[in-house]
Amino acid sequence: MQLYCFEDRGNRRVALRPELTPSLARLVIQKGKSVSLPLKWFAVGQCWRYERMTRGRRREHYQWNMDIIGVPEVMAEAELISSIVTFFKRVGITASDVGFKVSSRKVLQEVLRCYSIPENLFGKVCVIIDKMEKIPIDEITKELKSLGMSEEAIKDLLQVLSIKSLTKLEEILGAAGEAVADLKQLFSLAEKFGYSEWIQFDASVVRGLAYYTGIVFEGFDREGKLRAICGGGRYDHLLSTFGGDDVPACGFGFGDAVIIELLKEKGLLPELSLQVENIVCALDHYLQGAAAAVATRLREKGQSVDLVLESKPLKWVFKRAARTNAQRLILVGNSEWQRGMVSVKILSSGEQYEIKLDELE
Amino acid sequence: MQLYCFEDRGNRRVALRPELTPSLARLVIQKGKSVSLPLKWFAVGQCWRYERMTRGRRREHYQWNMDIIGVPEVMAEAELISSIVTFFKRVGITASDVGFKVSSRKVLQEVLRCYSIPENLFGKVCVIIDKMEKIPIDEITKELKSLGMSEEAIKDLLQVLSIKSLTKLEEILGAAGEAVADLKQLFSLAEKFGYSEWIQFDASVVRGLAYYTGIVFEGFDREGKLRAICGGGRYDHLLSTFGGDDVPACGFGFGDAVIIELLKEKGLLPELSLQVENIVCALDHYLQGAAAAVATRLREKGQSVDLVLESKPLKWVFKRAARTNAQRLILVGNSEWQRGMVSVKILSSGEQYEIKLDELE
Repeated sequence: MQLYCFEDRGNRRVALRPELTPSLARLVIQKGKSVSLPLKWFAVGQCWRYERMTRGRRREHYQWNMDIIGVPEVMAEAELISSIVTFFKRVGITASDVGFKVSSRKVLQEVLRCYSIPENLFGKVCVIIDKMEKIPIDEITKELKSLGMSEEAIKDLLQVLSIKSLTKLEEILGAAGEAVADLKQLFSLAEKFGYSEWIQFDASVVRGLAYYTGIVFEGFDREGKLRAICGGGRYDHLLSTFGGDDVPACGFGFGDAVIIELLKEKGLLPELSLQVENIVCALDHYLQGAAAAVATRLREKGQSVDLVLESKPLKWVFKRAARTNAQRLILVGNSEWQRGMVSVKILSSGEQYEIKLDELE
Repeated sequence: MQLYCFEDRGNRRVALRPELTPSLARLVIQKGKSVSLPLKWFAVGQCWRYERMTRGRRREHYQWNMDIIGVPEVMAEAELISSIVTFFKRVGITASDVGFKVSSRKVLQEVLRCYSIPENLFGKVCVIIDKMEKIPIDEITKELKSLGMSEEAIKDLLQVLSIKSLTKLEEILGAAGEAVADLKQLFSLAEKFGYSEWIQFDASVVRGLAYYTGIVFEGFDREGKLRAICGGGRYDHLLSTFGGDDVPACGFGFGDAVIIELLKEKGLLPELSLQVENIVCALDHYLQGAAAAVATRLREKGQSVDLVLESKPLKWVFKRAARTNAQRLILVGNSEWQRGMVSVKILSSGEQYEIKLDELE
């Protein structure tokens, strides 16, 4: 991940934030005991990454984040995925459009432990593995070798990463390890939450961030046209890397770029049309102040008003009213105004009447 | 105004945007004839300025902007100020808390024209004048001299800038000029809009941005404790500086920092308490999946749910329910669940009953 980093005028090395999780970790450390755990936190913020721009990947995007701080159990990850599923359902996306690939970093950890590979290489191995779909397998092998892994370890590792069935994983790793136990627990909870059909085990998912320690997941479109829609996982040791005590935590990031592409593909992107309750127009230039008074009255009553700010022909006003989907046209004309009245036209029905300004609401 | 500017990895000179207006100007130029004028545009965006941080001035803030593109008449400025007044009223701020100082850049322009000072110095003069309250008058005089202004011109200029009455201004500049005509028009419209008591003429207001050409205004707290709350004005020539045709335009920027200070001062900052409709809790660890199912059901009915993710004593659950202002506590216990039921407690009344899961909503 490339950052936008630079030196500011005070000679500080700064960067535009590439993601929100480290900020949350620092916040939790800073607030200390005044935060009651578990903390369920969400945020939508702008993030920047200096990367090659492709479909669904921009250098600047908004990211929705949800994190649960203080819960060691897999129930937390299950709840996070449930939130995303709830979101998908509410925007009209179904389990046949989108799925989640789920694995655990502990799978890799257990394989590495078999070969007595030092713990401190774990993060690096994960970052290399995460690139597997993007760069050739020879390159991956080379990079893993350069960390000191034996050919045999690499071969076994790559074989484990190709597993797509939890039963198969259990056969290889045994039922005693945490990896299999966590994953079985997650799939069991998914059934209770009601989103079994959305998730599948896939050992190749490791996610690109070095700090994940347990369950990891990513949302993908089933047609395989787009980049990952969202991703997350457990990061139980992140707080200690920022100088705090370790607190169990997990979370996800969900950018705005890929989901927009998916919603477009599926025809689910809402058309947000203009909407205004009233369009108010003076029929003569010297009545513009009167029109302003009408607008103020309506706004004080909580109504939205598009006030016509110049003298315009009525034809123009009707065209604008149609374009902005105005519900009522309020015309301020000389003879009515002298009687303290305005003319109202309901634009859907064409109904037209005069009303006292005092009674207009 | 100091920017955060730097060179990115592609060797482009870039900056974090200090304000939103130039982006809007470029947008309007880019969209060309597909934009129907007048365009009434608002945005709330993050902006950055590398400045000394003081009360109400941060290096990073959110700014609310409203602009009206395509209206040459003062009615547009009057409408913008009306929007801000409407906002103030809705958050509980009155005309005795806040006012607007209003002037026109044309006042300065007319004075400069008297002394045959070249038009192209106009923007620079404005930027110097805008610092008048912050740096000593000798420094201002020195800077104006360095632009080539005579002592007499500077003296007259400073005298005009001290005027706080429109009648006085008219005596000095005459009634024929645009400056006086625009301002009289604005004060007349303010009366019709109903915000006369909010605004006052003050020739010293010029605003710091070089691109303003006509009416300028700024919101201030009447106790004089804070920096300007918001500011804006007309910028009829901005689009041509970006390569477009000139289009009459005006707008304002309203940062989040000073208004927060003011709302705190006035005790108007709302206390946003936690709110959730349901807290759902399993009474035994093995019932957590059941609790998850209850949460999913409620969420599908549109209800908000705080699902307790770990086994916690009931005392803890009640404490959390109180802290989050939960309306209902739903307990999932063994004997009820076997009968397809859950236990509901209405937390405001203490009322408690059992209900079938199918009937829970």
